[in-house]
Amino acid sequence: MAAVWQCQEVTSPSTAGAVRQGSLRELNLAVVLRRIAAADRPPSRADIAAGTGLTRATVSAVVDDLIGGRLVAEADPAPRTGAGRPARGLVLAGDGPAGLGLEVNVDYLAACVVDLAGTVRHHVVRRADLRPVSPADALARLAALAADARAAAARQGLTLAGAALAVPGLVDAGGLVRLAPNLGWRDVDVPALLAGNRLTEPVDGVPPLVVENEANLAALGELHAGPSGSASFLHISGEIGIGAGIVLDGRLYRGTRGWSGEIGHIPVHPEGRPCRCGGRGCLERYAGQEVVLAAAGLAGAELPADTAATRLADLARAGDPATLAALADAGTALGVAVAGVVNLLDLDTVVLGGGYAPLAPWLRPPVVAELARRVLTAAWSPVTVRPAALGARSAAVGGAASVVRRIVDRPVGWLARGG
Amino acid sequence: MAAVWQCQEVTSPSTAGAVRQGSLRELNLAVVLRRIAAADRPPSRADIAAGTGLTRATVSAVVDDLIGGRLVAEADPAPRTGAGRPARGLVLAGDGPAGLGLEVNVDYLAACVVDLAGTVRHHVVRRADLRPVSPADALARLAALAADARAAAARQGLTLAGAALAVPGLVDAGGLVRLAPNLGWRDVDVPALLAGNRLTEPVDGVPPLVVENEANLAALGELHAGPSGSASFLHISGEIGIGAGIVLDGRLYRGTRGWSGEIGHIPVHPEGRPCRCGGRGCLERYAGQEVVLAAAGLAGAELPADTAATRLADLARAGDPATLAALADAGTALGVAVAGVVNLLDLDTVVLGGGYAPLAPWLRPPVVAELARRVLTAAWSPVTVRPAALGARSAAVGGAASVVRRIVDRPVGWLARGG
Repeated sequence: MAAVWQCQEVTSPSTAGAVRQGSLRELNLAVVLRRIAAADRPPSRADIAAGTGLTRATVSAVVDDLIGGRLVAEADPAPRTGAGRPARGLVLAGDGPAGLGLEVNVDYLAACVVDLAGTVRHHVVRRADLRPVSPADALARLAALAADARAAAARQGLTLAGAALAVPGLVDAGGLVRLAPNLGWRDVDVPALLAGNRLTEPVDGVPPLVVENEANLAALGELHAGPSGSASFLHISGEIGIGAGIVLDGRLYRGTRGWSGEIGHIPVHPEGRPCRCGGRGCLERYAGQEVVLAAAGLAGAELPADTAATRLADLARAGDPATLAALADAGTALGVAVAGVVNLLDLDTVVLGGGYAPLAPWLRPPVVAELARRVLTAAWSPVTVRPAALGARSAAVGGAASVVRRIVDRPVGWLARGG
Repeated sequence: MAAVWQCQEVTSPSTAGAVRQGSLRELNLAVVLRRIAAADRPPSRADIAAGTGLTRATVSAVVDDLIGGRLVAEADPAPRTGAGRPARGLVLAGDGPAGLGLEVNVDYLAACVVDLAGTVRHHVVRRADLRPVSPADALARLAALAADARAAAARQGLTLAGAALAVPGLVDAGGLVRLAPNLGWRDVDVPALLAGNRLTEPVDGVPPLVVENEANLAALGELHAGPSGSASFLHISGEIGIGAGIVLDGRLYRGTRGWSGEIGHIPVHPEGRPCRCGGRGCLERYAGQEVVLAAAGLAGAELPADTAATRLADLARAGDPATLAALADAGTALGVAVAGVVNLLDLDTVVLGGGYAPLAPWLRPPVVAELARRVLTAAWSPVTVRPAALGARSAAVGGAASVVRRIVDRPVGWLARGG
């Protein structure tokens, strides 16, 4: 039996009267909810008692709280297999809190709603070239998309408890976008520009709006949707820019200032092609979407990012020699950079996401070849290279899922609002 | 006042009699000991009570336990500045448990003893070219050095509570050295070869011998000895091979299998010089010690690693053009690789360690130049590049310090042995 620890705040004698009795309830709510969230099949109250070491009476009281607060629901009973009435299993509720995931990218806006059980309940992507649009206008369009998502959530009985917005750039802790080079944004105060819009309901402990790098949220989307088992991985978002999200032990590694994952600017040919960052020979100049399109003879086609990937995949499938050569070159450059990352971080899984996902059949072989050749430990520990489960646009889903995760981690904040 | 949490195990009714009362004492011991370890000046019992929220009676009882177990001692009283007798401050004991740090490298063996307060109490380095020596013979010589260290510790009233051995290679969780290319070791079972030697006293919760990559332990040595404040950094050990230790939030990042930090095999010129790893263009082939020595005209001089670094520093100081050019080239290659690491991990501190430490005056400028040119966030967040505080051979100190840290983290294991 796994031990469970109940914690109580200890105070000095002068504040002994202030011991927080609530903290025990808070912990038990979280333990039981996490148990339900992590279960392979809906557990009964008795299963939870056995698995946590809590008494059945405590479990029943906690489950009643969670059901009353629309965090947990009773599943349909399992088919009768033996004598007696089967116990009803418990599942995460599909009509309680939900997360709002938003994305502003170079050529589209997106909004999605994910419920507590992790199901995507609404997802709209609106195509638009946002490069000539001011940040204020782009965010006004996004706010309209968010209002639609909010209405769609309400129609399904869901309450938006928080939002996360993905931006392809460097974001400060306060939501200030320092630089989004491919959007042409610099020092854009996103929370201030969105302040007039009510996106979500206030919930204690859940920020109303988190602004985060797109590649980071895409990695969280993969953690949410991908095959279980790989709790540490590198997720690469291949678009016009190339970003990466690093997940270590199930948590996003954000770096000292939240600016990790700029894999597109790893030098792969130190004195090679100049990059718009001011450096030379950056990976982005060898494996970024514009470069691959140009090498495949599609330069200037002004294709939206996901259309571009689909178009390249179609050409590759048809055996177009220029496209196949372009993808082989891009895959080799990508493999050089990823070999450096694996030598440094000793990761066993690399996920090709964003625009790379549909191109994985052609990018994967050269990446795998470079890893075999360049990773010191390749002989003992093969690295899995696979396409992302969500493919392109996992960032909005990852953002919404990150909101939901906050509620599962600390349900008392949601319950305190009156549910 | 910071809140303190006391934890008690919760059990189901059937095991209610088994509630571990000991866990509360265990936690209080750790809280108080950590407070003393982290204090800027020796705290009094009253300071600890105020800082932790524990009652003064509890603090006094815990401190008595810690003093009785030779984990804490009373410092000399501070000079009298006002009325009354000044309270005596508490410090970590210098006559209790200590850590044994060992190192096998290409051209030396080392053993050192670090006490609980972090002071190096014994440190012996024995020069020897170990490349022609069998692993069993090399480890037998090391065991002799360890026995000397054990005797030296005993003479000073210290008890060796655990050992950590640094090896320049890939180490499995069980202490099997998979590959140490520059030593010529492959699949060497170090714990088995050292099993006949009693290095340390058994202490619950402290492994008698941990075998770890040299660059990882060197990074821990830097964490132990370096300027406070940089809890996340990259520590590069520049020897014949180039390894790195990655410290994130004060903890060593070991990777999925403990094989992180192989920065020497990051490709800096993908189709460049062949490397003994089978790849091409690895950093080691542009900034490794043998390459720098050859470029400085010292090829084949068969210098021990630290002598080589000192010799290069002497030549550079004298203005020798070949040496200056060799160091500039090595620094540029190092800067290319480190720029990739900083783009990926968003670290703000890079430490030049091992043989690089004495060469930092010449390596640092080209590294800084490449970072300024190639790191996307360079404009907002300068990266500090500095020589290691311990210089060469910090691995043995880091290993010993890692043993000491285990005791500070969980003092009850040491106290249980009867002190």
